[in-house]
Amino acid sequence: MNGKISRTLLIETPALPGNLGKVATAIGMAGGDIGEIETVQVGPTYTMRHITVQVDNQEQLGELLEVVRKLDGGIHLHAVSDDVLRAHEGGKIQMVSKNPIRSLADLRRVYTPGVASVCQAIKEEPEKARIYTSIGNTVAIVTDGTAILGLGDIGPVAGMPVMEGKAALFDQFAGISGVPILLNSKDPDEIVRTVKNISPGFSGILLEDIGSPHCFEVEERLKKELDIPVMHDDQHGTAVVTLAAVISASKSAEIDLREAHVGQIGLGAAGLAICRMFMAYGVKKVFGADKSEDAKERLKQYGGHVMGTLEELMEQCDIVIATTGVPGLIQEKWVKPGQVILALSNPKPEIEPEAALKAGAAYAADGRSVNNILGFPGIFRGALNSRSQEITHPMLVAAAEAIAGCTKLGDLVPHPLDPRVHSVVAEEVAKVSLATNKNRYDYV
Amino acid sequence: MNGKISRTLLIETPALPGNLGKVATAIGMAGGDIGEIETVQVGPTYTMRHITVQVDNQEQLGELLEVVRKLDGGIHLHAVSDDVLRAHEGGKIQMVSKNPIRSLADLRRVYTPGVASVCQAIKEEPEKARIYTSIGNTVAIVTDGTAILGLGDIGPVAGMPVMEGKAALFDQFAGISGVPILLNSKDPDEIVRTVKNISPGFSGILLEDIGSPHCFEVEERLKKELDIPVMHDDQHGTAVVTLAAVISASKSAEIDLREAHVGQIGLGAAGLAICRMFMAYGVKKVFGADKSEDAKERLKQYGGHVMGTLEELMEQCDIVIATTGVPGLIQEKWVKPGQVILALSNPKPEIEPEAALKAGAAYAADGRSVNNILGFPGIFRGALNSRSQEITHPMLVAAAEAIAGCTKLGDLVPHPLDPRVHSVVAEEVAKVSLATNKNRYDYV
Repeated sequence: MNGKISRTLLIETPALPGNLGKVATAIGMAGGDIGEIETVQVGPTYTMRHITVQVDNQEQLGELLEVVRKLDGGIHLHAVSDDVLRAHEGGKIQMVSKNPIRSLADLRRVYTPGVASVCQAIKEEPEKARIYTSIGNTVAIVTDGTAILGLGDIGPVAGMPVMEGKAALFDQFAGISGVPILLNSKDPDEIVRTVKNISPGFSGILLEDIGSPHCFEVEERLKKELDIPVMHDDQHGTAVVTLAAVISASKSAEIDLREAHVGQIGLGAAGLAICRMFMAYGVKKVFGADKSEDAKERLKQYGGHVMGTLEELMEQCDIVIATTGVPGLIQEKWVKPGQVILALSNPKPEIEPEAALKAGAAYAADGRSVNNILGFPGIFRGALNSRSQEITHPMLVAAAEAIAGCTKLGDLVPHPLDPRVHSVVAEEVAKVSLATNKNRYDYV
Repeated sequence: MNGKISRTLLIETPALPGNLGKVATAIGMAGGDIGEIETVQVGPTYTMRHITVQVDNQEQLGELLEVVRKLDGGIHLHAVSDDVLRAHEGGKIQMVSKNPIRSLADLRRVYTPGVASVCQAIKEEPEKARIYTSIGNTVAIVTDGTAILGLGDIGPVAGMPVMEGKAALFDQFAGISGVPILLNSKDPDEIVRTVKNISPGFSGILLEDIGSPHCFEVEERLKKELDIPVMHDDQHGTAVVTLAAVISASKSAEIDLREAHVGQIGLGAAGLAICRMFMAYGVKKVFGADKSEDAKERLKQYGGHVMGTLEELMEQCDIVIATTGVPGLIQEKWVKPGQVILALSNPKPEIEPEAALKAGAAYAADGRSVNNILGFPGIFRGALNSRSQEITHPMLVAAAEAIAGCTKLGDLVPHPLDPRVHSVVAEEVAKVSLATNKNRYDYV
């Protein structure tokens, strides 16, 4: 490597003079350049500091860390963070007071004795809770940690950085207060029971990174038993953005999507949801392929058609989406001229877009740009704004069409940080909800 | 009433020109002065606005509201808020992203793909979750709504303004992220089960406004079964601030508290906790009186002494605390010269301080100034900073002594907005915890 390496060390020293000097000397002797030193916390007997160091290469970094780890007398190296880890220190989210409490008058208004009149007002008219509490703007982000990213069942605590990321995006793109709920159980009964028990504090439930197949049962039961919107993002959020991408790609390839043969390779949670989303959009012929008989059975129940082999599916379909997690699964010789191929598995797709295009595809892309960020913030904003008691397929299709409508011709989806997307999605979702759904009250 | 009355109306109008004019005309005709008009939300078909009006008196307000309510054509009056209600509109708290996500580079750091390396780091070393997530700084504020303020069992949703108040105070005074959890069940088994199921996301549990006697079982079981601090504020938070007040009052009255006879009238959740706190502080003779045999039995189990009658207790005790909710319960003729009397029931005390002083008390106060705010933020900050797995009586006594130490001679407690109090409480609690407790890791 050519460039220097920068790391931030989290170091505890006894709160006595001279200890920082020992640390700094050790780092210098090991060839590290010290940048910023920031005091993180002053404890009763110790001080915690962030010390940023630069070294020339990995080897030197290793030596430097060894020297620092060997320091004694109460000096402890607690963490070595790169840029990414550094951005997560202390967590990415915080519950804050919307207004500062500066005077006794403020305190009497927001706390006792004033708050009693607000409680009383809600007791008398329960729907007033939407006006006088944050419940109407708060969504639980619920995981059992069984399918965190592509990492699998690593547990809810190790999945927390993802949940915090979702909460941060909820705040930034939709002004929604997202609260991570990490579940101590993977049992569907226990998950449903727990979420129902804490549901009064929330106006929506975003299920996140819950494994297949228990994610189907959990989502279906919660949708049935709760009267607030429930959505498993890994299923329907992914499907919304995929449909949006396919709408755009079909436009580029001049294919009439609703009349096309659409093939889905891989019928896991995301794949099945994608099939259902296409059917909801009005695609008449949706085909699926998977190794699992259970998965194929599920597809049939939803009204899809099962293909015997991958070759057959590739041969039959104008549009092919793959979500198998198997790199290189799609062979170049199977590609039909004029086909649209979205090979979405991360980090390596089922077929590289360049290879698919060379083999004759009209449009090809991998999963890097098909990002859930484009969906869930606006979908929930729209559902909350319309006080919907549910999230329906027509609402999700409206979200996909809104995303596609914000996409420049030739692109697959809009830029994920384009704030316009989220407000357009929210508006279209709310419109459909108001026109078709049970909505709780007149006003949000 | 002499002064004008100000109210804020939340009004929905169809999103068509001329509708705001209709509303403004109606208000003007009814004699209301319009102040600010603020657009709250622009929906697909409607606009929501806050309109602040001033009127001369209640009668005129009533007439004005009637006129506005009668407007038709899609105009709806949704809420009429005074200053207190206004301060609660939209809720008092929000989960926010600590850092803005401005670029794709930010997004890649805090969300995919960067976040995967953070999840992996926690998977490998679970204790890293304290560093790279917000869990270590997050406390659940849990209620079943059975004992909200003095209002009783009004349900968790009507209690939400109190929970949000606690969260706002956590943020402001201790930098803690407080998450309200509203429980759909009053059953102790179900409460314990649910809190345990969601406990991985939290580093502390503040139980709040849970009724007696099930609050005892809920707290005891959670303390036993969880390895994070659990505290029922209505019991121990109240007891901490009461002990602090009594330490200050004893100093003013020149009484040696540990050698004094202390009497507690009312052995509900708060009263029993106050008795236990005195015993933990080292008071040798703690007496209690209550109508309930169960309550007296509990006091005996904790090592307290039961008094037959109120008169007897008043006769025997140098210091008397009352938390019965019965105004005027303590008769003036029972007051002993030199006695300290804290009659804490709100809004009307068991004996007015003036009356008690006139009857010979050395020091007397009511409950207005004995405010829980002084306790829980610093107690949890200290417990989190020391990574304590529990909150113990020695920690709580340290909190009470810290509060008393910040009190000016002659005062009962410090000013509740004095930020110094909370940091001193946190420091003293952490010191005791580090010296005596099981602490999870070296570093917060």
